[in-house]
Amino acid sequence: MFLHPMSWPNGKKCAASVTFDIDADSLVRVGRPKDADLRLQPISMGRYGPTVAVPRILETYRRLELTQTFFMPGWVMEEYPDTVEAILKDGHEIGHHSWAHEDPMEHSDEVEAELFERALDTHIKMTGHKPRGYRAPVYSITPAIVNRLIEHDFLYDSSMMADDLPYEVVTNSGSLIEIPPHWGTDDWPPFAHMGELDYIMPVRGPSDGIKAFIEEFDAMYEAGGFWMPVLHPFLTGRLARWRELERHIERIVEQGDVWLTSMENIAEHAKSTGSRLRQENLDTGSTPATPLTP
Amino acid sequence: MFLHPMSWPNGKKCAASVTFDIDADSLVRVGRPKDADLRLQPISMGRYGPTVAVPRILETYRRLELTQTFFMPGWVMEEYPDTVEAILKDGHEIGHHSWAHEDPMEHSDEVEAELFERALDTHIKMTGHKPRGYRAPVYSITPAIVNRLIEHDFLYDSSMMADDLPYEVVTNSGSLIEIPPHWGTDDWPPFAHMGELDYIMPVRGPSDGIKAFIEEFDAMYEAGGFWMPVLHPFLTGRLARWRELERHIERIVEQGDVWLTSMENIAEHAKSTGSRLRQENLDTGSTPATPLTP
Amino acid sequence: MFLHPMSWPNGKKCAASVTFDIDADSLVRVGRPKDADLRLQPISMGRYGPTVAVPRILETYRRLELTQTFFMPGWVMEEYPDTVEAILKDGHEIGHHSWAHEDPMEHSDEVEAELFERALDTHIKMTGHKPRGYRAPVYSITPAIVNRLIEHDFLYDSSMMADDLPYEVVTNSGSLIEIPPHWGTDDWPPFAHMGELDYIMPVRGPSDGIKAFIEEFDAMYEAGGFWMPVLHPFLTGRLARWRELERHIERIVEQGDVWLTSMENIAEHAKSTGSRLRQENLDTGSTPATPLTP
Amino acid sequence: MFLHPMSWPNGKKCAASVTFDIDADSLVRVGRPKDADLRLQPISMGRYGPTVAVPRILETYRRLELTQTFFMPGWVMEEYPDTVEAILKDGHEIGHHSWAHEDPMEHSDEVEAELFERALDTHIKMTGHKPRGYRAPVYSITPAIVNRLIEHDFLYDSSMMADDLPYEVVTNSGSLIEIPPHWGTDDWPPFAHMGELDYIMPVRGPSDGIKAFIEEFDAMYEAGGFWMPVLHPFLTGRLARWRELERHIERIVEQGDVWLTSMENIAEHAKSTGSRLRQENLDTGSTPATPLTP
Repeated sequence: MFLHPMSWPNGKKCAASVTFDIDADSLVRVGRPKDADLRLQPISMGRYGPTVAVPRILETYRRLELTQTFFMPGWVMEEYPDTVEAILKDGHEIGHHSWAHEDPMEHSDEVEAELFERALDTHIKMTGHKPRGYRAPVYSITPAIVNRLIEHDFLYDSSMMADDLPYEVVTNSGSLIEIPPHWGTDDWPPFAHMGELDYIMPVRGPSDGIKAFIEEFDAMYEAGGFWMPVLHPFLTGRLARWRELERHIERIVEQGDVWLTSMENIAEHAKSTGSRLRQENLDTGSTPATPLTP
Repeated sequence: MFLHPMSWPNGKKCAASVTFDIDADSLVRVGRPKDADLRLQPISMGRYGPTVAVPRILETYRRLELTQTFFMPGWVMEEYPDTVEAILKDGHEIGHHSWAHEDPMEHSDEVEAELFERALDTHIKMTGHKPRGYRAPVYSITPAIVNRLIEHDFLYDSSMMADDLPYEVVTNSGSLIEIPPHWGTDDWPPFAHMGELDYIMPVRGPSDGIKAFIEEFDAMYEAGGFWMPVLHPFLTGRLARWRELERHIERIVEQGDVWLTSMENIAEHAKSTGSRLRQENLDTGSTPATPLTP
Repeated sequence: MFLHPMSWPNGKKCAASVTFDIDADSLVRVGRPKDADLRLQPISMGRYGPTVAVPRILETYRRLELTQTFFMPGWVMEEYPDTVEAILKDGHEIGHHSWAHEDPMEHSDEVEAELFERALDTHIKMTGHKPRGYRAPVYSITPAIVNRLIEHDFLYDSSMMADDLPYEVVTNSGSLIEIPPHWGTDDWPPFAHMGELDYIMPVRGPSDGIKAFIEEFDAMYEAGGFWMPVLHPFLTGRLARWRELERHIERIVEQGDVWLTSMENIAEHAKSTGSRLRQENLDTGSTPATPLTP
Repeated sequence: MFLHPMSWPNGKKCAASVTFDIDADSLVRVGRPKDADLRLQPISMGRYGPTVAVPRILETYRRLELTQTFFMPGWVMEEYPDTVEAILKDGHEIGHHSWAHEDPMEHSDEVEAELFERALDTHIKMTGHKPRGYRAPVYSITPAIVNRLIEHDFLYDSSMMADDLPYEVVTNSGSLIEIPPHWGTDDWPPFAHMGELDYIMPVRGPSDGIKAFIEEFDAMYEAGGFWMPVLHPFLTGRLARWRELERHIERIVEQGDVWLTSMENIAEHAKSTGSRLRQENLDTGSTPATPLTP
């Protein structure tokens, strides 16, 4: 089933981490810089995330005694300090998620470096330490960002998709644990509808959309693997959708044989397995590749 | 479940308002101004709304003794006076929905102001009074429109998405009740197919599409919240789809513990709860925001 | 339920007409005129229609003793004479469907007129008479085409969507029966995937896609209305999809209380009901409308 | 049911071939030549195919003692030699699938010819012989490619869609067996989400997406036809999806009356049926067709 199977602590059969990217209104502000402040609909839709959905999600986590991971752009952290505080108070992890959800493919690496550092400063200022994990906006991680993460002692990234289970990305300058996402467990395809970003989907119903994530869990559970939905509070944190996913998380917790934990813990565990971990070599040098066709 | 839960009159467990935006053929006439009059297919598709679907919907409402809310662009009101008359005769509310469904983001606020007033005049002329509620085309409400609504003593808007329940939008010049819509209860994603507006969806089947709305209701009912589908007569007023939704509305009415009423009543009730209502501060001044990234 | 209900001959409870538009490879040839002859995939996909799907559909119709309606572009008729012959031999109707599925909105009415007449000549040459019905490519009928249909004594059109049931379109120069299609019973949204025409859908499974059409039938049956799917042999004539729809048609036939007949018969019946028929006035004069917004 | 029904060897009721196109990261490298090496997300998503999914698929095939067919671009073969070796070791077939998944419609036939030959050389070098089958990237086969396949003694192509069952494409210079694919059994519409190629689908859940393929099988089984899903390891080789399809393949194998074999065997069998095979004449001469409309 897996080429590099992983065993989990305390005899757990399977591991899982529910991750939320709290992008809030950074999406429309960066996507439509000329007039975003006029666009109150996508702004309010984004604000729903930190102000309405995150409290709901935190309530569930408190009730089920879970510690999970949120990824936040630095600008969102500064704009919503109460959200940061509430997340930290409950002991959850906050990962680096860019400055304001700007796609790294849309500007030079010099700009990217500056924005990355700016967000890093925000993390240090607001959480008291550097984040240990990173996820790129739209998953658009570049070799230069990988170098930067290694340089800043990040433990893990969660943007690349080369495996089902965590693996190690090895470069000339060091290595990083990769905790791979997957479009089948991302909530943009089933739920997002955002003309401002040219992303208009037919919006599935709550049970229909969440069912896909649950089926992914079922397969991972059966195989003793790892399940990590990539969610957004303004999408999956909506009442009806969260009720569906919450019920599923409750079932997992009741079952008792799933290690439902933060990304940091998953990454530490992966790192501790040492040589049994799959390694992906990555050339992060600066020579651009030759096009494959004339 | 809700940070700012609301109780409903007469011990009702949950509130709901079924809203229809009667855009008719304004959509294609504004979307394709150069040759819309040649495009008889989208024109006829739009005309289905006021001439076929609205009578069907009104019949259901009469049978179930319901008073609900319709939003109509001024041009549509003038073009379909019988529709206005039939709606008013049955005691329903008509809200302001722009002049001809022109997106406020596509022109200057000067033009927007002129069209807004023109529609307002139509409302006064045809209904005898100013409308109390507003919904922006494509939900594209701007700060200037919010100011305008407050200036004209509107009770509520229904274009922003920052919460599940009604909330208060507070500006420097006054405040407004916001009754928030949501893409998961809008019928464009499941049912619209309009190449003229570059909006082509895979069109769900009647029960599949309506099921999503019902699941949203179920979650709101369970949580004691508020359910407000945003529908269009030419989409959800089609026979097979309406039969699905009608059966659901019949069930709600039979249950007896849902306050199914007009938007105006919902907004008045929200306003009456006073300080328990969530407040969203909105800067509607004219200084444009600075872009978040270089 | 219906503002202008219709009764059907011989006490039938409901009427239905299964229509197929045989566009074949005209779609890609007109859509990509510069290099269509190099595009063997969409050409072969189109050729599947007349060469594989139509024989399959005709077999079903023969077995169930049904007479139905096909719409064919003139070019397709000339390119696939055996298909025309097989359809006529079994007594089915062939309606006018343009010369080569060119969208009337993409060229002047002079060109449209010339192509319309060319197709008309093909009909007369190959069927021995003028067609009695018309459906515009992409439903893009224009006022000028309506005039042309009336001028050529067409009995009906099937491109406009202003009602559930057949209605009469009345112009200054005469009238026409309209048998309205609807996007909810068109097989492009659930089944088409044609990058060459920028029409890429997520392609539903056979039972899922056909279920939507059946639900539309069920609602029409219950209301005593009229059901008319708009299908394409290269889409719904594919084996698995046709088996789903075929089973539904078999059930209808077994039931015995549905008048399943050709469009021509439906139109004749509608015409015979005279003044009880809904009338839609249509200004087909040449003065272009004024844009609704500045 | 079929105009040209086929009987299968050893009294089997139906035939089937599960085909995988192993495109890996060629997709993004060719689609975004200027900066593909920076796009680690689609690269890693592509790498999942040969490194994670193919071993999983091969394991299933070994367990069920199946010999199936993979199509690989030459560049992918050179980049993933272990994948080629593992496939060959288990006795599976590898078909020609271009040099690096470049769309033949995007460059001149001179370039296409050169890339075709380059891939052919890779096949000979790595497998010891010329491939017997071909599938065009995005199915974009051209008349010139058909000529080239015949010139190089290919047994079959699998890019055109003119029938349900294998047929013979006859040109002036020879003929070729065509084993036709179909968009209803291709896994891009249900599962692909690749912004880099402007191909963004709402991503179905595992059981929902695979159900469509199974329904296509059921119809083919009932009719004694041929079923050939066109899959991609990085899509359908994902754990949860493969478990769904694997279960279906297990059922087929248990049933015992389905000839589940390689494309080469299907093509040889089709060829052996001789004159009973449907023939499609194809003019592969160099005169471009005249546009159908002015």
